[in-house]
Amino acid sequence: MIIIMHSHVTDEEIQGVVNQLKSLDLEANISRGIERTIIGAIGDERKVHKKSLQALPGVDSVIRVVKPYKIVAREWHEADTVIDIKGIPIGGKTIQIIGGPCSVETQSQMDLAAEGVANAGCTLMRGGAFKPRTSPYSFQGKGVEGLKMFRQAADPHNLPIVTELMDVRFLDDFLKHGVEVIQIGTRNMQNFDLLKEVGKIHTPVVLKRGICATLSEWLMSAEYIAAGGNHNIILCERGVRSFEKAYRNMLDITAIPVLKKETHLPVIVDPSHAGGDATLVPALSKAAIAAGADGLLIEMHPTPCDAWCDADQALTPDSLKGLIDELRGIAQVIGRDI
Amino acid sequence: MIIIMHSHVTDEEIQGVVNQLKSLDLEANISRGIERTIIGAIGDERKVHKKSLQALPGVDSVIRVVKPYKIVAREWHEADTVIDIKGIPIGGKTIQIIGGPCSVETQSQMDLAAEGVANAGCTLMRGGAFKPRTSPYSFQGKGVEGLKMFRQAADPHNLPIVTELMDVRFLDDFLKHGVEVIQIGTRNMQNFDLLKEVGKIHTPVVLKRGICATLSEWLMSAEYIAAGGNHNIILCERGVRSFEKAYRNMLDITAIPVLKKETHLPVIVDPSHAGGDATLVPALSKAAIAAGADGLLIEMHPTPCDAWCDADQALTPDSLKGLIDELRGIAQVIGRDI
Amino acid sequence: MIIIMHSHVTDEEIQGVVNQLKSLDLEANISRGIERTIIGAIGDERKVHKKSLQALPGVDSVIRVVKPYKIVAREWHEADTVIDIKGIPIGGKTIQIIGGPCSVETQSQMDLAAEGVANAGCTLMRGGAFKPRTSPYSFQGKGVEGLKMFRQAADPHNLPIVTELMDVRFLDDFLKHGVEVIQIGTRNMQNFDLLKEVGKIHTPVVLKRGICATLSEWLMSAEYIAAGGNHNIILCERGVRSFEKAYRNMLDITAIPVLKKETHLPVIVDPSHAGGDATLVPALSKAAIAAGADGLLIEMHPTPCDAWCDADQALTPDSLKGLIDELRGIAQVIGRDI
Amino acid sequence: MIIIMHSHVTDEEIQGVVNQLKSLDLEANISRGIERTIIGAIGDERKVHKKSLQALPGVDSVIRVVKPYKIVAREWHEADTVIDIKGIPIGGKTIQIIGGPCSVETQSQMDLAAEGVANAGCTLMRGGAFKPRTSPYSFQGKGVEGLKMFRQAADPHNLPIVTELMDVRFLDDFLKHGVEVIQIGTRNMQNFDLLKEVGKIHTPVVLKRGICATLSEWLMSAEYIAAGGNHNIILCERGVRSFEKAYRNMLDITAIPVLKKETHLPVIVDPSHAGGDATLVPALSKAAIAAGADGLLIEMHPTPCDAWCDADQALTPDSLKGLIDELRGIAQVIGRDI
Repeated sequence: MIIIMHSHVTDEEIQGVVNQLKSLDLEANISRGIERTIIGAIGDERKVHKKSLQALPGVDSVIRVVKPYKIVAREWHEADTVIDIKGIPIGGKTIQIIGGPCSVETQSQMDLAAEGVANAGCTLMRGGAFKPRTSPYSFQGKGVEGLKMFRQAADPHNLPIVTELMDVRFLDDFLKHGVEVIQIGTRNMQNFDLLKEVGKIHTPVVLKRGICATLSEWLMSAEYIAAGGNHNIILCERGVRSFEKAYRNMLDITAIPVLKKETHLPVIVDPSHAGGDATLVPALSKAAIAAGADGLLIEMHPTPCDAWCDADQALTPDSLKGLIDELRGIAQVIGRDI
Repeated sequence: MIIIMHSHVTDEEIQGVVNQLKSLDLEANISRGIERTIIGAIGDERKVHKKSLQALPGVDSVIRVVKPYKIVAREWHEADTVIDIKGIPIGGKTIQIIGGPCSVETQSQMDLAAEGVANAGCTLMRGGAFKPRTSPYSFQGKGVEGLKMFRQAADPHNLPIVTELMDVRFLDDFLKHGVEVIQIGTRNMQNFDLLKEVGKIHTPVVLKRGICATLSEWLMSAEYIAAGGNHNIILCERGVRSFEKAYRNMLDITAIPVLKKETHLPVIVDPSHAGGDATLVPALSKAAIAAGADGLLIEMHPTPCDAWCDADQALTPDSLKGLIDELRGIAQVIGRDI
Repeated sequence: MIIIMHSHVTDEEIQGVVNQLKSLDLEANISRGIERTIIGAIGDERKVHKKSLQALPGVDSVIRVVKPYKIVAREWHEADTVIDIKGIPIGGKTIQIIGGPCSVETQSQMDLAAEGVANAGCTLMRGGAFKPRTSPYSFQGKGVEGLKMFRQAADPHNLPIVTELMDVRFLDDFLKHGVEVIQIGTRNMQNFDLLKEVGKIHTPVVLKRGICATLSEWLMSAEYIAAGGNHNIILCERGVRSFEKAYRNMLDITAIPVLKKETHLPVIVDPSHAGGDATLVPALSKAAIAAGADGLLIEMHPTPCDAWCDADQALTPDSLKGLIDELRGIAQVIGRDI
Repeated sequence: MIIIMHSHVTDEEIQGVVNQLKSLDLEANISRGIERTIIGAIGDERKVHKKSLQALPGVDSVIRVVKPYKIVAREWHEADTVIDIKGIPIGGKTIQIIGGPCSVETQSQMDLAAEGVANAGCTLMRGGAFKPRTSPYSFQGKGVEGLKMFRQAADPHNLPIVTELMDVRFLDDFLKHGVEVIQIGTRNMQNFDLLKEVGKIHTPVVLKRGICATLSEWLMSAEYIAAGGNHNIILCERGVRSFEKAYRNMLDITAIPVLKKETHLPVIVDPSHAGGDATLVPALSKAAIAAGADGLLIEMHPTPCDAWCDADQALTPDSLKGLIDELRGIAQVIGRDI
């Protein structure tokens, strides 16, 4: 930790910082420059509250020199993490495409969806039984009944299922119905009690980025899960909020190479929620693969115009199949496969 | 609802929209302009998914003409809502100042804090027993034991207590310990299951704005609580995320007059979390009162430098008292009192 | 134009709007819905100030139904614009890579740079003789002398040059030295007097996006140039400002497919300024090509560590060459070439 | 300057940084911590490019310890700057209100406006003769003829005039017509050639904040003017771009106390452009004064509904007068006057 003092700092103020550091079991290294005095704190800074130093007299700013996350950091674990989901690896050379509808509606819709997903070349299936909706008057999902429908639709195609958990009270149902991948949604990225619960099990977790979360906050949320013992974490970039009104969210493509440096966890992208528009999905999907994503989470609906939510962002089964064919070419060029 | 068609729209596409509207029990009013054809949908648009129309061929964009929220809207309830908390009104002519530490640490810290809060002129006390922390390695709060300490400290001063609920599983404890005001924090503004639970009781709720939530999303979260039957909702602006790095969050002062037009609910401001720095609290507090806020939520700690979290944003008991005296003058000028 | 009236609107207020529309040569179409009255204005709304209607009593909001830009809109010109720069087409099937240093430093630096650029497979060369720098104490560019050095370095390789014009007073020098492509930088995207001047000539213009400009504002700036008669406009996405601190700017990859729908102008991407870090350039370049960009503007310096500005974002000649080879593969997969 | 090295840094990499620092006339202080090695650079870091160090092998990040601005910094000039404009002080105990229309339209409009402004209690008058408009098809201002009308209207009331300069080529006209305060608009905050030109004269300058400018960038733009010799600079906060759609811009009220710490220059606020709506002006004006602003720039039009631009954000003469009376009360409470 580095403590930069104000320009007119007094010896007394410097001593105050040194004393505080000592009480925190840190050594102080004082360096008096021409315009500023700087104090380096030597020791394990992760235990120290930056703010308890910032409040001291004479302190201008406090800068951490080590990352706040540890288990999820590339620095501590150099090799890529590859997560095995019933034999399907996420995070390795092969890129996985997860397809499916926004929400579970009916058994026949799910059956058709599963068939479309499998035919298109997807290896996992997505679908929401519990839906986080901005309005209390919107369809809130089929709940546990939806989990059953999903299971029944996916099993004949051997598709592991990915579905969102919003409330700790339903975790047992998720385990009971053998959900292979639990999704933690955007709005719950910092629902720390939920993160702690999924940290206690070993089911792989897709952790979506909060709508305005920094990469550091997102990795700290992953660290919550990892600290509990569950290291099977897949990060999912899904667009962030910006000033632009021409489309829904701004896909943060730069996050992909930056995360690949910072963490060993797999990174996938949801182009459907990012753009909020089916016509944007092909360009965003290609960009994500080209930038190094380990997978995609794409919305597909047997009949998009009839979808009960997010109708205009779902692809048809045919268009998803066509897109995956194109993506395969890009994957090959960059030395991967789909 | 207004549906704006593409410039080269066909009669078939127009008919498609009309048919879809009919199936949704809405009438269509077609208006052919020089450059665009526009279709007005007449009927109750709250039932209709904007997106199920947006996905139809020939549609350029769909615009709602009524607000998505209803119970919380000023349009439906013209008079200001005044919430009674053990005889203390929030939302009326009198501005209430809620003071207290970021987190409950020890009984003696809380006892001193309660004394400071009462002496300064605050009418309610804040303090966190359950703390949402970005890092899993940071102090997570005293939990239920903290609720007891808080209760014991506040009661001798007749201070109703305001404290954050993060997990539905602790709601019973909150009720058991007679928490007078439940705070829903920034990170849980769209934790819809939590909102539904506090919607089922009648305890007043302080609903903090999400770090990047639009006013419309925030009011929709309030609508979730209200739709359950709990109309005792206090909105709390606490700064939003921006590109600026010179301070922590950007206090959205404009939100105050805009909310006052849009909703009848009381609006308070948290200048401590907004600026993230005790030296900014006086200016932000004065601005909030001048702009029409119904109250403030200010961090105060008996000995700020020793605080276990957010040390550099807490005022001392004396500085809080001095600030409230200044605020009283501003309140009088704008026809209110403290 | 659609005028949505307040819920408690009076007949008098409706009549006021109708009268105002008549005075603006527009016809009014009144539609009384269940909750709202809506007035459609029929006629050429481009002449009308939205705000002169918004200020009228009883008006809730005013919505435009046609785009504010015309010459640059795809709606008015369906085919892609292909700009010919000394025989090099921008905007057609072939993707062009423009390489070169951030700034012109010395003749030998530029000679080496030109050689590297040509060898790598670039077809145009970039370099700044006039530099917009945040600090008045930073190197401000070589000025007119720099243009001469640039010319002398590029000509032996038949590389047309792309260089930034910051001040209308230097336009004659740019023309005198035969600058083939004039760059209007991020900070000048809404320097309307500068836009008007480059609108009067026929030299192709690279118009960079403002650091926080919406796509609509950016297209309006292009319309400024086009309205003057210069239709040779190339849009350059270079990242926008966001809340994220882990890298410099957020590359708006979604802007590419959205612009391709909205406008017929070529769209290129500057991955160097977007990420602000040479190690991010390969991933961002691949993503941009995969998403449909018509070209790239990449920083390359013969010896990056010695660069006088933006040292850490420049590629070496070798790494640029290697990158272009990879990009060629992606271009082929999506049916284009480099 | 502090250089933080990667965790697996080699001795060779450390030596590389030390050598680079030496070549820049800086001394190196090496501190080896448990997890990181940190190198402190001692000497005048303002001459050094952060990026030329960041690009070196083994470097993780580089942090400046001194501010990039100097003349405008409070650190270098402790007392508040008070600017004298024909006897009217800006930056002292008295708060100045600058009123007037968005744009100069006709002589009679300006005559009425000047009368209204003077009657309301304003001490300076604003109005645009050159208008930066997003659309090339919108009214672009009356130009030099407008300056004359403005002069003629303001003189009988002894109102110094504040008006925007967009193009260096018109500076002589501004001087010829005795413009007392030159406004540099939001879109030109980083038009460095324009800043350099107004830095060469002594006419006071109102420097508006860029739509997305950080406080540091804004102060650097002020430093450009100051570096040229013109220290008569007034900073004007006018709202920044955000994700919120419920109003035009987000007024950054926190900027006021932060700027007051960072700089000795006066800070005023433009509540009209911030909110973009006349009904928001009173709340934002009160908040700005309460937070410590030295003045306000408020739009007023004799007949707002007829205004040629920004009709819905102008106050009437009467409402401006009423507002200033209210503001006077707040000024007194905080120990100032209007």
